[in-house]
Amino acid sequence: MAETISVMPVAASEVGAWDADTDVVVVGLGCAGASAALGAAEAGAEVIALERASDGGGASALAGGVIYLGGGTPVQKACGFDDTAEDMFRFLVAACGPDVDEAKVARYCDGSLEHFAWLVDHGVPFKSTFYADPVYEVLTDDGLMYSGGEEAWPFCDIAPPVPRGHCPQIEQRSGVLLMRGLLESVADAPIDVRSDTMVTRLVLDGDGAAVGVIARRFGVDMALRARGGVVVAAGGFAFNDDMLGQHAPWLVDERCYRLGTDGDDGRGIRMAQAAGAAVRHMDAAEVSAPAPPNLLAPSLLVNGAGQRFINEDVYHGRAGQAAMTRQDKEVYLVLDEEIFEANPSWLKITWAAGTVAELEADMGLPAGALRATVDVYDRHARDGHDPLFHKHPRWVRPLRPPYGAIDLRRGLYGVFTLGGLQTQVTGEVVDLDGDVIPGLYAVGRTASGIPAFGYVSGISLGEGTFFGRIAGRRAAARSA
Amino acid sequence: MAETISVMPVAASEVGAWDADTDVVVVGLGCAGASAALGAAEAGAEVIALERASDGGGASALAGGVIYLGGGTPVQKACGFDDTAEDMFRFLVAACGPDVDEAKVARYCDGSLEHFAWLVDHGVPFKSTFYADPVYEVLTDDGLMYSGGEEAWPFCDIAPPVPRGHCPQIEQRSGVLLMRGLLESVADAPIDVRSDTMVTRLVLDGDGAAVGVIARRFGVDMALRARGGVVVAAGGFAFNDDMLGQHAPWLVDERCYRLGTDGDDGRGIRMAQAAGAAVRHMDAAEVSAPAPPNLLAPSLLVNGAGQRFINEDVYHGRAGQAAMTRQDKEVYLVLDEEIFEANPSWLKITWAAGTVAELEADMGLPAGALRATVDVYDRHARDGHDPLFHKHPRWVRPLRPPYGAIDLRRGLYGVFTLGGLQTQVTGEVVDLDGDVIPGLYAVGRTASGIPAFGYVSGISLGEGTFFGRIAGRRAAARSA
Repeated sequence: MAETISVMPVAASEVGAWDADTDVVVVGLGCAGASAALGAAEAGAEVIALERASDGGGASALAGGVIYLGGGTPVQKACGFDDTAEDMFRFLVAACGPDVDEAKVARYCDGSLEHFAWLVDHGVPFKSTFYADPVYEVLTDDGLMYSGGEEAWPFCDIAPPVPRGHCPQIEQRSGVLLMRGLLESVADAPIDVRSDTMVTRLVLDGDGAAVGVIARRFGVDMALRARGGVVVAAGGFAFNDDMLGQHAPWLVDERCYRLGTDGDDGRGIRMAQAAGAAVRHMDAAEVSAPAPPNLLAPSLLVNGAGQRFINEDVYHGRAGQAAMTRQDKEVYLVLDEEIFEANPSWLKITWAAGTVAELEADMGLPAGALRATVDVYDRHARDGHDPLFHKHPRWVRPLRPPYGAIDLRRGLYGVFTLGGLQTQVTGEVVDLDGDVIPGLYAVGRTASGIPAFGYVSGISLGEGTFFGRIAGRRAAARSA
Repeated sequence: MAETISVMPVAASEVGAWDADTDVVVVGLGCAGASAALGAAEAGAEVIALERASDGGGASALAGGVIYLGGGTPVQKACGFDDTAEDMFRFLVAACGPDVDEAKVARYCDGSLEHFAWLVDHGVPFKSTFYADPVYEVLTDDGLMYSGGEEAWPFCDIAPPVPRGHCPQIEQRSGVLLMRGLLESVADAPIDVRSDTMVTRLVLDGDGAAVGVIARRFGVDMALRARGGVVVAAGGFAFNDDMLGQHAPWLVDERCYRLGTDGDDGRGIRMAQAAGAAVRHMDAAEVSAPAPPNLLAPSLLVNGAGQRFINEDVYHGRAGQAAMTRQDKEVYLVLDEEIFEANPSWLKITWAAGTVAELEADMGLPAGALRATVDVYDRHARDGHDPLFHKHPRWVRPLRPPYGAIDLRRGLYGVFTLGGLQTQVTGEVVDLDGDVIPGLYAVGRTASGIPAFGYVSGISLGEGTFFGRIAGRRAAARSA
């Protein structure tokens, strides 16, 4: 944990002279920081945006690019789906729980249509076509997908299933297209972007308010004054082993493929903590499943005792979390030849057998364990039901020989952190007394946001851009 | 989270005049604070010990009283058990993981014999008799029990099983006897005990070192200077809903029976955090099982899908954690009349049936689910084995009609928090840069200690007293 550069705050009285002076300082130029900078600039503020890498983009540019939006967007309507902010709210509260910040979810759902329009205005195009198959992310240029398991139990019973994963129109992972639009908008706006510049510490006045930052560029420290406020949008901490050890040590595992950039080292969180900020849900993480959704859904995901433990058609990140934190990554995929052949993936069959008894013996499972699981599954699958885990009938049928199993005990889980600074809906950071730290805002994965513990694809880019704009506007208003 | 009294640190320069001046200030008089005060006083330091309640004791006085000690104590030897510090180390690292602080465990195991003698010297008597049955806690005056599942898989394969739960000699829950011994020793020592005095904030000098505290007694604030250091031993945060929401919201549940006192509100953790301290494993908690060990061990603990998920003879807190965090508290105990009659408890049979098929129907489980579980269990139990979960053969036999099940979905889980301030072996608190905060020590449940995530009964009283002494001595040495 020892680092060369301290995160401890600096007193404004110790800053001899400010190297620059502006209304709003934004820390980080991923989707949340870019949106915060735009939000502040569009409100008329002077903005300096600081990015530690040589160019903006961050984890957002590497992302699949899904943006979770709803309430009846033009894309949803064109694809024939009816949605409301209320249904979206009900779904998100259930899927992202427990302990969801309902005020944030409500604000997000109510503002979703306007936010869709804002994104389009800022150069993010969406094609009005629907991609129906279950996948991690869409690699066609289609604009809409199910990205959160809305059709799966228990969520299908909580709100009418509607797809809300909006994908920028490009035939590849589309985070890059989102960031191209936002960064071009930033370039066109009166925003002073300084790259290769790492913010190291906050500057606080005598009352504990954030009034600026210390940043380092090529070894030289500078002090930047922010009259309105500092918006920290510096990502999560998936790339900081010490912080993972403190909060989620099970993610320090070679089977965890970390999603993001080296910059996701949690410095933004720590420098605010050192200024008295509270954190929330620091053990929460997105954990993608080690098998793709198309193959998962029709198969049986079983644990080391040969037992199923979840409906396999659930959002793959929910299956991934269950496999990692509840089954200690000791999982297998059990299927038949027909399922395997119909669902291409990178995975290979580890064991194949003519009977389940042979299969369980080959897998080294105790006699009768997997047979019991398959017997109970098949018994009800003949009626098209899965009373144990409520998989949708679309994916339920008895397994047929020849059988197979895929060893996922060494499988890879894509992970990033969800915990972060405790904020209000406005992005204002709350301290250990429960009071707002004046002038300090946090958005994106630096903050604990809509995903409390559960996740849905597209919510990070969605809420990062949405709450980034709000925080930018708030900081701008404070400087006026 | 908003509170009347801030936890934010006060600058020494803002303290007009000190109301008192001493070598070591100890915050809290549970077992860790009493031991810290004694450790400091026995090293020759002047000590002021502050307790917010009207008398010392804290959660320790309410505890079952088991103290985890080993390496060949006189009680172990008299009862015929061979133990070594190495076996104790291997067990604790496995049982308290993942992410155990091995340096702390090593220091604890190596010092265990000396610590046993220190406790006896301080008025804590132990009878050299062994209590063999599985129970939450011993209510006879016997001195030794298995308190951490040493005999259960996988721990029995990691180190030779030896009982290490040492129980002070009294025919009731014995935490009170431990605290009587320690508090009488405190009263006999040159320690200035001030009760009804709540420490609210730390006082820091210009370098961020802890040089005192602000405390409140009957509405009046006082500033107490600590030349050597401040030892925070103020308990965990099980009684603070806001902190539980931030770190472990699943504990905010009417099924969680919180163990400790109202004073376990995490103020000690928060006031150190506000001074820049790092925290560790804040989501970790001890969670006792909702059924007693004697009844659990021979029964089948099943989830909402009628599946077993753990060896039922494991340490009951491990079963409790699994039931709560992995099965969402949707659990049942399945057994037969003979098991129920032989193991008295407060639990009543919810469903009784002549066949497992009837039982599963009565329980509302999907057809075949519980039957599959019992069939696989019985099949191997006939040979005295449990290949799925490795329950010890002592507890394994096929179930016999009439069958029964106990609905534990509304069961009570005794809980307290395990996460806290990040400390070194010495008790020195580490800040967000990974550096020691000079003069600040934390012990007991205010710190993240030996139980990283797993727990064993007796380790809180054991490490609280052990590391309390060390921190007290260190703070004393610093003032010399």
